[in-house]
Amino acid sequence: MSEKKQGTYVNAEGSYERKTRYIPERITKDGRDGFPVEPGRYRLAVSRACPWAHRTILTRQLLGLEDVISMAVAGPVHDEDSWTFDLDPGGVDPVLGVPKLKDAYDARPDGYPESGVTVPAIVDTTTGQVVTNDFHQIVKDLVTEWTEHQREDAPDLWPEHLRDEIEEMSDLNYSEVNNGVYRCGFAGTQDAYDAAYDRLWKRLDELEEHLSTRRYLVGDQLTLADVRLWPTLVRFDAAYHGHFKCNRQKLTEMPVLWAYARDLWQTHDFGSTVNFEHIKAHYYATHLDINPTGVVPKGPDVSGWDEPHGRESLA
Amino acid sequence: MSEKKQGTYVNAEGSYERKTRYIPERITKDGRDGFPVEPGRYRLAVSRACPWAHRTILTRQLLGLEDVISMAVAGPVHDEDSWTFDLDPGGVDPVLGVPKLKDAYDARPDGYPESGVTVPAIVDTTTGQVVTNDFHQIVKDLVTEWTEHQREDAPDLWPEHLRDEIEEMSDLNYSEVNNGVYRCGFAGTQDAYDAAYDRLWKRLDELEEHLSTRRYLVGDQLTLADVRLWPTLVRFDAAYHGHFKCNRQKLTEMPVLWAYARDLWQTHDFGSTVNFEHIKAHYYATHLDINPTGVVPKGPDVSGWDEPHGRESLA
Repeated sequence: MSEKKQGTYVNAEGSYERKTRYIPERITKDGRDGFPVEPGRYRLAVSRACPWAHRTILTRQLLGLEDVISMAVAGPVHDEDSWTFDLDPGGVDPVLGVPKLKDAYDARPDGYPESGVTVPAIVDTTTGQVVTNDFHQIVKDLVTEWTEHQREDAPDLWPEHLRDEIEEMSDLNYSEVNNGVYRCGFAGTQDAYDAAYDRLWKRLDELEEHLSTRRYLVGDQLTLADVRLWPTLVRFDAAYHGHFKCNRQKLTEMPVLWAYARDLWQTHDFGSTVNFEHIKAHYYATHLDINPTGVVPKGPDVSGWDEPHGRESLA
Repeated sequence: MSEKKQGTYVNAEGSYERKTRYIPERITKDGRDGFPVEPGRYRLAVSRACPWAHRTILTRQLLGLEDVISMAVAGPVHDEDSWTFDLDPGGVDPVLGVPKLKDAYDARPDGYPESGVTVPAIVDTTTGQVVTNDFHQIVKDLVTEWTEHQREDAPDLWPEHLRDEIEEMSDLNYSEVNNGVYRCGFAGTQDAYDAAYDRLWKRLDELEEHLSTRRYLVGDQLTLADVRLWPTLVRFDAAYHGHFKCNRQKLTEMPVLWAYARDLWQTHDFGSTVNFEHIKAHYYATHLDINPTGVVPKGPDVSGWDEPHGRESLA
């Protein structure tokens, strides 16, 4: 996703609101929108910095879809047109052949979506156009539409009998945590910030309690509920604690959430998807309205992520 | 002290430099500068936010000079003329009868010092003029010139046989820690910040090691070396960690320094001199060049300051 300047997202009361109207098309087994599941045809455009893109990176990896859906990785800092492929040789994505993700958005026949140039976005390599940027739908479709191409022992991240519970848990975590940290950071007034801070920590306290007796958020297995929450947790100390003033505690000071986050990092290889330098560079160098110097902090020390988590015995 | 806007203090290489030419006059036993020690005559102007003023507040309290030198407390946020007495009824200091500390500076016959309108400043109530604002000299003079008026069991904070060691320790801590956090926060370039961060943490690591086997910085007693370092430590998590990007660890994550800081808070009643709300309001609402919204964080949780420190057994 692309985080716009504060003014864009702050309502009359000084509170942050996220634009959420994404492209409605989907990539499906039956190809009903003109985009059938097809190995090698689509390219997932992400940034290592973006928590919403991170959900798709994690899901693709967990399901073993790396050889089926390729990945374009944008650099952490925007130019005036949002995400660019400035990490690639010549500043051009080697598959899409374009320097900016915007080029793939512009290739859409119906023009530019209200949501702007955001990641994650899945691009059809046969036409060079963005097919979808709906981060919420993308992960569900990776689970349910790409079944034929997932690795043999792929986990069921969205089991039928847990879906209601997963969606309920995820909706709450989305509004209070995933989006809650932005509500703190982009608050335009002290009152809006204070209210946002209280909402965030209320939910984090609930999660600390919830996870104290269970290994995963829903059921006794890794699900999309975990995949959706975790990208915010892994960014917490590196970006949200200082830059967004979510500073009651660091994640490392919330014993249960910290152990839970380390468990996923280690047990499910979430750690291999993380680039802290991209995360910090993006938040601190892109939001110049809240960090005018653009200086990127050298901290925090992240060596603790490989420490034992001790959660094996939980159900 | 008054922290000016970033531009004022950043040199050509983007590094922060503090102006250090203070008023040379002193209040002494012999009154050689026209200002003899005299109970009830002088008023110490401070802010609860300012670490340099904090040294004088601590020293005055440790020596039992509260009834001998009164104290004017400025509010945490500056107006265009720096510190004001906006906490007092009518916005006027009840003893000095002025709304702004600048008024006491303007009352000086030789005009305005290069250092600007800073706290701590000691004002002569008979003339209403600032006598001295040299925070380094003030604490030494409270120790050596006001001996007759100190409480009977006042500690010797600057014992003769330890003075060389105290000054050497304090000079190093001043440049690398007390001032080092500002060097991080006011760095105008990434390179200047990176260098400042490394200098700061090198010294903090040395202090963590130094204090692991001894209760105080110099000798086996509380000295001015401790009084000078501590105001920076107590502000670390509330201001410097996030606002100044000194974020490798929080103080609470440096086990020795954290226990040392708690020991002084508890054992020597340093805690009674601290106002975290003033500290946070000052840094976050005054430096709008690095925090444009002026929003003041609700964190961190500071409840840990009263936890047992376990350092009684150290020499």
